[in-house]
Amino acid sequence: MPGFEIQTRERVVFVDVTTQVAAAATESGVTDGVVVVYVPHTTAGVTINENADPSVRADMKLALERLVPESLMFTHAEGNADAHVKASLMGSSVTVPLADGRLLLGIWQGVYFAEFDGPRRRHVVVSVLSAR
Amino acid sequence: MPGFEIQTRERVVFVDVTTQVAAAATESGVTDGVVVVYVPHTTAGVTINENADPSVRADMKLALERLVPESLMFTHAEGNADAHVKASLMGSSVTVPLADGRLLLGIWQGVYFAEFDGPRRRHVVVSVLSAR
Amino acid sequence: MPGFEIQTRERVVFVDVTTQVAAAATESGVTDGVVVVYVPHTTAGVTINENADPSVRADMKLALERLVPESLMFTHAEGNADAHVKASLMGSSVTVPLADGRLLLGIWQGVYFAEFDGPRRRHVVVSVLSAR
Repeated sequence: MPGFEIQTRERVVFVDVTTQVAAAATESGVTDGVVVVYVPHTTAGVTINENADPSVRADMKLALERLVPESLMFTHAEGNADAHVKASLMGSSVTVPLADGRLLLGIWQGVYFAEFDGPRRRHVVVSVLSAR
Repeated sequence: MPGFEIQTRERVVFVDVTTQVAAAATESGVTDGVVVVYVPHTTAGVTINENADPSVRADMKLALERLVPESLMFTHAEGNADAHVKASLMGSSVTVPLADGRLLLGIWQGVYFAEFDGPRRRHVVVSVLSAR
Repeated sequence: MPGFEIQTRERVVFVDVTTQVAAAATESGVTDGVVVVYVPHTTAGVTINENADPSVRADMKLALERLVPESLMFTHAEGNADAHVKASLMGSSVTVPLADGRLLLGIWQGVYFAEFDGPRRRHVVVSVLSAR
């Protein structure tokens, strides 16, 4: 399975994986098209957000915990129902255009693995599609 | 329009369509690339989540109803404003990598049609793109 | 960078960009595949929703403001933390199937640029991938 592994260190954490995604795009040999970053887990997702001020990630965590509290009464026996909901709110993939071998991320954008039930060992799949 | 039809049976329900998506991928003849599952409706979406414990879907329903209550005061006259918002929160498409003719879904992942204003007859579009 | 520019006129507004997206698809010469609409900003996103009744966009705004109030206590110094969270909830891209040179949008669907920290000048990237 093409992609890379990461180890998350907290229950809820946004891990910057932009470097690994860009490396996978380069390795593919494709220069123009799109890169799909896919998370094959049900208690984690992936999102694109600001790469500069780390407080944006802290606020994202806070806002998602307010939306779907871990303590909310759920029926799922494993006690991580909130993580499943948060994963679906963020989504299991992002698609980033690629031109001249470069990801067309905005200057403030980074790709973040969104862990909602860590710490865990996780896999991220990267697929690169050519527009030509 | 390539894809398949489903009939939903409740106002809000997550319908497992993984089998139909996998079949559409096989029919395409593409073995390596991505499969895009697209919902051409404004009160339904699509998401990827756990395929084992049905309580995860029950909790997702509960959490989304808490986030966007059907009873909330909205201006949209048709009375299904909550369904439009929930559809945008889940998203109108998912993209799943395909390798060696197999969807790279994680072991616990399934593809779910997310109905927010059923019961209705719905269409799901499947596009398969080759990485080669 | 392929795509188009828009000028948003309010802090939070959903701008219909369906015409520009369809034009970019036509210009690409691709007739069958998918169109990826990508937003390279961290306080804006993109979503697909109803194109008929404008009250749906008003309700979306209202529901998102209820979910992530601008006034919520956040740590991000720029005072637009809510915009970053709303952007991740909507997502930074949508993918729409294309067949016979036509976007397979449902009859009620339009593509909306989701501004959460305007008014601003914004760029939208459009990538078209062929299924053949």
